[in-house]
Amino acid sequence: MTHARLTPLAQSLPATVPFVGPETQERAQGAPFKARLGANENVFGPSPKAITAMAQADTWMYGDPESADLRAALAAQHGCTPAHIMVGEGIDGLLGYLVRLMVGAGDTVVTSAGAYPTFNYHVAGFGGVLHTVPYAGDHEDPKALFAKAAEVDAKLVYLANPDNPMGSCHPGADIAAAMDDLPAGTLLVLDEAYVECAPEGTALPLGWDDPRVVRMRTFSKVYGLAGARVGYAMGAPDLIEAFHKVRNHFGMNRAAQAGALAALEDQSHLHKVQGQIAASRNRIAQIATDNGLTPLPSATNFVTIDCGHDGPFAKAVLDGLIARGLFVRMPFVAPQNRCIRISCGTDAMLDLLATALPEALGDAARTES
Amino acid sequence: MTHARLTPLAQSLPATVPFVGPETQERAQGAPFKARLGANENVFGPSPKAITAMAQADTWMYGDPESADLRAALAAQHGCTPAHIMVGEGIDGLLGYLVRLMVGAGDTVVTSAGAYPTFNYHVAGFGGVLHTVPYAGDHEDPKALFAKAAEVDAKLVYLANPDNPMGSCHPGADIAAAMDDLPAGTLLVLDEAYVECAPEGTALPLGWDDPRVVRMRTFSKVYGLAGARVGYAMGAPDLIEAFHKVRNHFGMNRAAQAGALAALEDQSHLHKVQGQIAASRNRIAQIATDNGLTPLPSATNFVTIDCGHDGPFAKAVLDGLIARGLFVRMPFVAPQNRCIRISCGTDAMLDLLATALPEALGDAARTES
Repeated sequence: MTHARLTPLAQSLPATVPFVGPETQERAQGAPFKARLGANENVFGPSPKAITAMAQADTWMYGDPESADLRAALAAQHGCTPAHIMVGEGIDGLLGYLVRLMVGAGDTVVTSAGAYPTFNYHVAGFGGVLHTVPYAGDHEDPKALFAKAAEVDAKLVYLANPDNPMGSCHPGADIAAAMDDLPAGTLLVLDEAYVECAPEGTALPLGWDDPRVVRMRTFSKVYGLAGARVGYAMGAPDLIEAFHKVRNHFGMNRAAQAGALAALEDQSHLHKVQGQIAASRNRIAQIATDNGLTPLPSATNFVTIDCGHDGPFAKAVLDGLIARGLFVRMPFVAPQNRCIRISCGTDAMLDLLATALPEALGDAARTES
Repeated sequence: MTHARLTPLAQSLPATVPFVGPETQERAQGAPFKARLGANENVFGPSPKAITAMAQADTWMYGDPESADLRAALAAQHGCTPAHIMVGEGIDGLLGYLVRLMVGAGDTVVTSAGAYPTFNYHVAGFGGVLHTVPYAGDHEDPKALFAKAAEVDAKLVYLANPDNPMGSCHPGADIAAAMDDLPAGTLLVLDEAYVECAPEGTALPLGWDDPRVVRMRTFSKVYGLAGARVGYAMGAPDLIEAFHKVRNHFGMNRAAQAGALAALEDQSHLHKVQGQIAASRNRIAQIATDNGLTPLPSATNFVTIDCGHDGPFAKAVLDGLIARGLFVRMPFVAPQNRCIRISCGTDAMLDLLATALPEALGDAARTES
């Protein structure tokens, strides 16, 4: 009876989840994970000043629907105005608003095969038609993405730089150059969630008023506030203004607003975490190499490891790690799914990885033979 | 250029905000409010156990996308199963998901003229057509709402019990009886945000499997966690399941989940706050009476005061209170806009009200004459 009342689009959608959460897996297996290395969270944690700010927030009050203090601080950091910035409930929430604004039934959207599934979830959820192009090796392929966008007259084209799940990146200048071929009717959704982990020069070197692109940033990764749900979109003011048409104006958690502001102001903690991430990436790469596997270069807070065989083999390795209490994930589609993806962890967590990986590889080899 | 890319629906929407936040008003006036009595927040605050739980949350981790612990505790309290419950980013967020699921372009929806504007915002945002019926006196009119729903073949009909902005309520049994005339194709959206402030018997006395209704509850009011953004919808499992098609699966703040759970478990704090709210309502009513105004009976955490004249007069009183540093609000439409609405406050805040109200009334009388 209920389902008859849903819109035709809603009726057609599956009850889905882009990612199964680690807590769901823990409940299914009846035991907690020993190491949480699957969601590209920041185990090194947020600034202590952010923790204090969140603890001191007066949570009986609604948050400021304009997130004015945070937007002012972000504008100062990025050299733009608050009108260039929309704060929202993580990049996931902002992607939902953006797709809703731009994509109606039958509208076309382009992304890479195997790129961020939550974006695809939103496109499907608003009736959009998704076209994909393959990765070029282990990189997303801006040239092919923009050519496909022209071919299918896409409203949006999604590109993550650095990329998840492969950890690769392009110099921002290369993306800017490729944008010469971005069709006039297509908006580039540039997901820079991991940009603070990437080499200098990865961020897109174009002005904030450029109408061709909206950039997505987050406090969930290097800032260590995944559970707070604070992301922001940056773009030309008329685009940013459009979010006010559809967003949940009182959707921001008040403590999260205060925590993000404090985290932003503690750049020395950010630099410390960047160092911890770099060291952890090196350790993961070393563990991979020690086991005869190939770590891919990473511009993110995770390392994608080529297991050297096909998807089922990598899946067997993944299952072996999960069975040993390590929460890890892997790419969804071929050929990226020859890999597993390990988020940066503490030394103790990576000790567990170093122990479990050869065992999991042994399991996988036995499964194969 | 950007706006040409928006969907036709998005192009047609205004960049709007259902409520102007108090922080926005403070920035405009260049001074903070002395008393925050306009958003029906709970100035008495959440359980100290909730504050501790939020402070101890590991915010580097994403929240559990299933909110499983919280849903289990809510199910135990309400005598249903977790499958009857969807936790979301406040009732506002859940209303957005519900409207998205049910309402497409041109679909009809019914509410009361002057009822919750954020619901109307979502209906407009998904292209729905809103029909309204007047209040019956100071109460929403279930019989008229359901008759209008039948007349216009509504997908949804919205009813808040207790009501905001008037503070009135119906016995739940009366609404259940009125539902005999709810059309088969119409889902009742019963907003029970304030039900924990209301007399025994206000909650709808129907089973959780009833497919005709979805009930909305929140931790923003009596539980004192407005800034945490935790609401929940309760309904038949197949309806609740549909939320998974469109919701932001990782949208919940992890600390907020923990805080809501701790707040729920501290029912003695809830009872204490209920007493504080009752006392504060009495004090507000007394202040109104002392000034020759008529306080309406309240089943909520605010008191709506009939200023005895028309909308412009009440607006002048409101402006006088705001000019004296009190954040208060008033109903949007006639005839409810003969009133102002005062949220429960501490004794110190209500002392300010007692001082400011006669002055504001004097201003308003001079404006009138």
